[in-house]
Amino acid sequence: MADLILVLNAGSSSIKFRGYAIAGREPQLVVRGQIEGLYTDGARFTVKDAMGERSDEHRWPSGSQLDHEGAIRYLGDWLRGHREAHRVAAVGHRVVHGGLKFVEPTLVTPEVIEELAELSPLAPLHQPHNLAPMRVMAALRPDLPQVACFDTAFHRTQPAVAQAFALPHAITTRGVQRYGFHGLSYEYIAGVLPSVAPQAARGRTVVAHLGNGASMCAMQDGRSVASTMGFTALDGLPMGTRCGNLDPGVILYLIDELEMDTATIGDMLYKHSGLLGVSGVSSDMRVLLASEEPHARFAIELFTYWIGRELGTLAAALGGLDALVFTAGIGEHAAPIRERVCRHAAWLGLEFDPAANEAGGPRISVQRSRVSAWVVPTDEELLIARQTMAVTGMGLA
Amino acid sequence: MADLILVLNAGSSSIKFRGYAIAGREPQLVVRGQIEGLYTDGARFTVKDAMGERSDEHRWPSGSQLDHEGAIRYLGDWLRGHREAHRVAAVGHRVVHGGLKFVEPTLVTPEVIEELAELSPLAPLHQPHNLAPMRVMAALRPDLPQVACFDTAFHRTQPAVAQAFALPHAITTRGVQRYGFHGLSYEYIAGVLPSVAPQAARGRTVVAHLGNGASMCAMQDGRSVASTMGFTALDGLPMGTRCGNLDPGVILYLIDELEMDTATIGDMLYKHSGLLGVSGVSSDMRVLLASEEPHARFAIELFTYWIGRELGTLAAALGGLDALVFTAGIGEHAAPIRERVCRHAAWLGLEFDPAANEAGGPRISVQRSRVSAWVVPTDEELLIARQTMAVTGMGLA
Repeated sequence: MADLILVLNAGSSSIKFRGYAIAGREPQLVVRGQIEGLYTDGARFTVKDAMGERSDEHRWPSGSQLDHEGAIRYLGDWLRGHREAHRVAAVGHRVVHGGLKFVEPTLVTPEVIEELAELSPLAPLHQPHNLAPMRVMAALRPDLPQVACFDTAFHRTQPAVAQAFALPHAITTRGVQRYGFHGLSYEYIAGVLPSVAPQAARGRTVVAHLGNGASMCAMQDGRSVASTMGFTALDGLPMGTRCGNLDPGVILYLIDELEMDTATIGDMLYKHSGLLGVSGVSSDMRVLLASEEPHARFAIELFTYWIGRELGTLAAALGGLDALVFTAGIGEHAAPIRERVCRHAAWLGLEFDPAANEAGGPRISVQRSRVSAWVVPTDEELLIARQTMAVTGMGLA
Repeated sequence: MADLILVLNAGSSSIKFRGYAIAGREPQLVVRGQIEGLYTDGARFTVKDAMGERSDEHRWPSGSQLDHEGAIRYLGDWLRGHREAHRVAAVGHRVVHGGLKFVEPTLVTPEVIEELAELSPLAPLHQPHNLAPMRVMAALRPDLPQVACFDTAFHRTQPAVAQAFALPHAITTRGVQRYGFHGLSYEYIAGVLPSVAPQAARGRTVVAHLGNGASMCAMQDGRSVASTMGFTALDGLPMGTRCGNLDPGVILYLIDELEMDTATIGDMLYKHSGLLGVSGVSSDMRVLLASEEPHARFAIELFTYWIGRELGTLAAALGGLDALVFTAGIGEHAAPIRERVCRHAAWLGLEFDPAANEAGGPRISVQRSRVSAWVVPTDEELLIARQTMAVTGMGLA
C-alpha cells in the first residue's frame, strides 16, 4: 500500500484537497476535489482523478448542515473506501499566516495550533478556517503527522524597511507590519525557474501572481526582497473583488462621514471592490475581456496600469529588473493582460514577443530583450506536498 | 499708495500671512508673519520684514482667547497702522481641497464658499480652517476681491486610472479618489524649472516635495500625471508625523482587535506616526540626522527607502525618468537625504555629484548623467500671490 500525502486548503465554507502518492522524490498527484457549502443548506463533495476526470460526487440532504469536522470525517472515509491502494501518511495544510515566528513549514503539535490561533486577529477571515481541519485531524488521528505551510514565510527574507509601516512602536510591536502573502506560490515559482526560465532564476526578477487574489513579489536570486501585499490580503494590486492600495484616510472617512461600520467596510473591501466594484459587471477577467462595457474596459485598464506602477516600485526595490514572470489564473491564461503589462514595461528594457505570448510562452520576450518575460504555471499544492514530505522525512527511504 | 496682495494660509490654531507689493508683473514680498495660539490661552502675533528681520510682536493677555475673526481684524488693523504705504487690494487663500470641480484659482463668492464648505468632510482637519478667514473677510470687506488657490488643482490633469481607487461606484461617486496634494508647490516648481533647471522642464520629471508633509509628483512636460498622495494627506511617503502608505486592513484591525476609535486612530496617523513614530525621537530630520539612536537611523532608512520605491512607481507612470527635483525643507536643506535618494536611483541612470550636492545645487548630478537631479526652492505663497494677481487682473495696468 503506497503512502499518500493529503494537502488541505480550508476556507470558511469549503475544503479543497489533493492527494499525492509518494513514489521516489516527487509527489505524484492521484486525486483532487473539494467539499463546498459548509454551514449552508446543501453541502457538496466532488472529486476528480489526476487526469481531471470527475470520479465521484456526493450531496448532503437538504436540512443538514455540514461542519469542518463532518467534512474531514467524510473525506477520510471516502479515501479509505475508494483509494484502497493508498494510505494517508501525512497531511499538509495551507496556513495563510505564520506571523513573525513561523518562517518555514512546521510539524503541527497542540502548542503550534495554539500559537497559530493567536495569529487569527491578523487574518480573521482565513486563519481560523485554516486551523479547523488541523484540530479535527489531531483529535481523530493524533498519530498522523501534520505540517503547516505558510503563505507569509517566503517573505521573511525581506529587509526590515520593506516590512515596516511608519507607525508608532506601540502598534508595530503588536505585529502590524507588511507580511506579504502568496508565498507558497512564489516559493514554487522560485523552485522551478532554474529549469523552465533559467534567465529568471538568478538576478532581479519580479513574479506577478495574478489570480482572483493578486500580488507581485520582487526576488533577488530567488529570495523575496519586496511584495505588493502588506498586513492583510487587501493591499497592493486591485484584485477580483479586493480593493488593493487604499489611502488609510478613506477608511476614516467611510466611518466618520458615511457612518459605515467595520463589518460593512470589510465586506466591501474584500468582496465588492476591485475588478467587480469598478466594472460593475464581474470579477472574472474572462468576462471583462469579452465585454464592450466602458466600465469593464476601465477596470482592465486600472488593473494593468497599477501592475505597471507596482512593477516600477518593485524594480526600485531590486535596483533594476532582469526578468518578469507571470503566473496564476490571469497570469497563465490572459494573453491580452500579459501583453498590456509587457508593453507598459518597455521603459525597463522589456521587448515583447506577441506570437510567443499568444502561444502561451514560456518565454514571451524576444531573444535580444534586456529584460526577459515568462509564463510559468504555479502549483501551491505541490509545494505543500513537497514541504510536507521534507518535514516528515517521507520519501527518503 | 501701492497695492498689496495678502496671502493667507490658515490652520486650526494659526494663520500664516505674507504681503506682496504689486509693482510690475511680479509680486514683491514686503512683510510676512503669523498669528499662533488661536483658541488657546496666549495667542501671539509676530511679523518680519522682507529681509526676515523681526519688526513687531504682540501677545494677547492671559485669559483671553483669540478666534479667526479676531485674528483677521487684528492683522487688518496692524497693516493699516504699520504699512501706511500699502493698501490691501486682494487676498489669496491657500485651500487644501478643491474637490473635482475647482481645477484652477477661483474668485471667492458666497456661493464658492458654500461649495468649498461642502468639501470639508474630505479634509476635516484643514478645509474648515482654510475657509474661516475667507468668511471673516467677506463679512468685513465685501468689496475686497478674494481668490481661493487649491492644493489639489494641479493634479487634475492626471489620467483617470491614476486618480481612481478600485472601489464600488457607490463610494467613488461620493468623491473618494486620489486627489494628490502639494499642488501649489508643484505648480510653482513647474513654473521656475525652465529658468533654473531647463533639462527638468520638459520630458519626464519627478518632483520630491520633502517637508514635514512629503509627497512626490510625476510630471510630463510640467503637467502632473501621478502623485504619491491619495484621498487625504496621509497617503504615500512616510512624513514627519504621518504614516504614509498603509494597508487598509490595518485600520480595521486597530478598530476591531485593538478597540481603538477613529479619533484616536486619526490622531495617531496624522500626529504620532512617520519619522516621529518610528524613531521615537523626533519628527525633525535635522535631529534624526544628528542622532546615534538606532531607531533614528532606521527612521531615516525607512524614509529614503520608500522615496526610492515611490520614485520607481512614478517612473513607471512616466514610462521612464529624465530628471529628479528636490524641494521643500528636507529636499532643499538635507544633503545626506538627497545623497541617499540619488544613490538609490542609480539604476534609473542618475549619476550623482557629491560636491554639487554639498554645495546645495542647483544641479546635483554629473554632466554626463542620463537622468539629471536638481535642488529647487519652492515658494507656495508667491504662487498664490501670482494666481491672485492673475484672477483679479491686478498688475495689468
